[in-house]
Amino acid sequence: MEITVQKTDNPKEKPDQGNLGFGTNFTDHMFIMDYSKDKGWHDARIVPYGPMKFDPAMATLHYGQAVFEGMKAYKSPDNRILLFRPEKNMERLNNTNDRMCIPRIDEEFCLEAIKKLVNIDKEWIPTAPGTSLYIRPFIIATDKYLGLKPSSTYKFMVILSPVGAYYPQGVNPVEIYVENEYVRAVPGGTGHVKTSGNYAASLKAQAEASARGYVQVLWLDGLERKYIEEVGSMNVFFKIDSELVTPALVGSILPGVTRDSTIELVKSWGIKVTERRVSIAEIFEEHKKGRLDEAFGTGTAAVISPIGELNWEGRSIKVNDGKTGRLAERIYQKLTGIQTGELEDDFGWTEKI
Amino acid sequence: MEITVQKTDNPKEKPDQGNLGFGTNFTDHMFIMDYSKDKGWHDARIVPYGPMKFDPAMATLHYGQAVFEGMKAYKSPDNRILLFRPEKNMERLNNTNDRMCIPRIDEEFCLEAIKKLVNIDKEWIPTAPGTSLYIRPFIIATDKYLGLKPSSTYKFMVILSPVGAYYPQGVNPVEIYVENEYVRAVPGGTGHVKTSGNYAASLKAQAEASARGYVQVLWLDGLERKYIEEVGSMNVFFKIDSELVTPALVGSILPGVTRDSTIELVKSWGIKVTERRVSIAEIFEEHKKGRLDEAFGTGTAAVISPIGELNWEGRSIKVNDGKTGRLAERIYQKLTGIQTGELEDDFGWTEKI
Repeated sequence: MEITVQKTDNPKEKPDQGNLGFGTNFTDHMFIMDYSKDKGWHDARIVPYGPMKFDPAMATLHYGQAVFEGMKAYKSPDNRILLFRPEKNMERLNNTNDRMCIPRIDEEFCLEAIKKLVNIDKEWIPTAPGTSLYIRPFIIATDKYLGLKPSSTYKFMVILSPVGAYYPQGVNPVEIYVENEYVRAVPGGTGHVKTSGNYAASLKAQAEASARGYVQVLWLDGLERKYIEEVGSMNVFFKIDSELVTPALVGSILPGVTRDSTIELVKSWGIKVTERRVSIAEIFEEHKKGRLDEAFGTGTAAVISPIGELNWEGRSIKVNDGKTGRLAERIYQKLTGIQTGELEDDFGWTEKI
Repeated sequence: MEITVQKTDNPKEKPDQGNLGFGTNFTDHMFIMDYSKDKGWHDARIVPYGPMKFDPAMATLHYGQAVFEGMKAYKSPDNRILLFRPEKNMERLNNTNDRMCIPRIDEEFCLEAIKKLVNIDKEWIPTAPGTSLYIRPFIIATDKYLGLKPSSTYKFMVILSPVGAYYPQGVNPVEIYVENEYVRAVPGGTGHVKTSGNYAASLKAQAEASARGYVQVLWLDGLERKYIEEVGSMNVFFKIDSELVTPALVGSILPGVTRDSTIELVKSWGIKVTERRVSIAEIFEEHKKGRLDEAFGTGTAAVISPIGELNWEGRSIKVNDGKTGRLAERIYQKLTGIQTGELEDDFGWTEKI
């Protein structure tokens, strides 16, 4: 399929790299492709970024049939444009599509479309430390219809946002509230895929944790409220003694690309990594024994987010005296080094545009 | 707050009442009201129905912060326009808003807005048997922002759709597949409120049941996969011997207005109604004993939807020989009679516009 390109006549002014924030600025162009039952995915095009006309009865607005991905592009010191394991995101998008009754995309073609779009807006890729170009592919159901059934038409779109460091003050440990009222996901549900409803459902717990003075929530499993699943919208790791432990992908946990990369990276350093059930009681117990060295979240937005404190049912523990752990710091430096092209990519993870 | 009215210059042709379908035709006007942190809900207006401009970064499209209600207006034989317990829908909308971090609406004002809109488009209310004007109030998050937090701006909207009988052939029992892989909701989640993500999450099970030749799925609880929760997007009732039984509202079940009305109505007839846990094993056991007289779903769209067959883990039972039960038929006649103004409203449920 050919991708038509219509360039903007009114390029926007680029935002100040020192004050980008996250997801508030958008580049000059976007990619759009339509789906209908008779034509399949068709009419692939890059057009000027801007508002679109949607019918008030559009299915996504009512029944939430919407899915997305999150990726980043970096400009390397030698001026290459790098993506980080983008094929993993395309693969996950199709897994999400399958669960949400959305037609599959051609992963290779969509990756080509993303590369073409990023290349057209390459002057928007920020270069200040910690910054990147955030890439948001997403699919929305576009039928004008209030009956409850999978839409027969969709739009696949890609928008780009130059973003600052997720934590402008650098990687600092955050205080986490262990959630015991609200549930993020349960096996048989949608927690293992990236659909919009998962995120809306998480807002209330986050808001209540914020009101209590915590930055994020740690999610426990919805069945027994014992086992750790995710932290905020990130996967979570614990360094217990000499071992790195992370919850196994039991069907209610998102298989994060940064999670997968962290596991592979840390194993390559000769450190044991175990994917298994981890209960919150075990973490508190290991802390008591002095064996809980570190805890941190992993995700595309923040890459690594150290946990400084955990509050569970009124009991609070400090992890690593509230300081960033050595392993978390080492993973952060190596992963961001590979992503930005500043360090050697021994894993073949980066893809040049 | 004043509601401004801008009438259409191009009224559409009204669809054929014999072939309305459900949720495919929309009237000439819609209601819109905006929310911002500084102004609260403001700028209430009735405008011509039509497409709206939305930014591709609109929060609803990415993180699913969207909620809705469903109601119906009927024209009575003596030409009154009737709503059915609309205050219950406004109350539930605010319960949904609370769970989804959306600012509360003024229930009385929004009901007035709905009445005003329905009155302006009153020529669209169909009068053929089984038809009605479906009313869809909904709220969407409108921030142009990819960060994960509650939106700071929203739109409350109401659109209207003349709809046919949900089952054009009349009230006929349907075949139901008891779902044992997918889960609709779990306590601590969002199953008890009307948010878009619940409906997207349910599509896959529905599609697989359809492929197996079943019309709807019966949802079991997400914790033990034993207890009955809902059928399709309806509440569910079982007549066991001389008693009517329905799952108690345990936090993962939507508190339906038709459910509530059914309970009150049937109690007024001197029949015992019990809200409690009901396991699927119990239903199969009662069928074996010859004590399962009837099973049916209740909801705004179909009102009453009898269950003719239940398939659970390969075992199949026919309910009431696959025919509509006497109690289901009696409830259907009385509820629709009250709703359409053809029967006396002994409960004060209808509200005249």
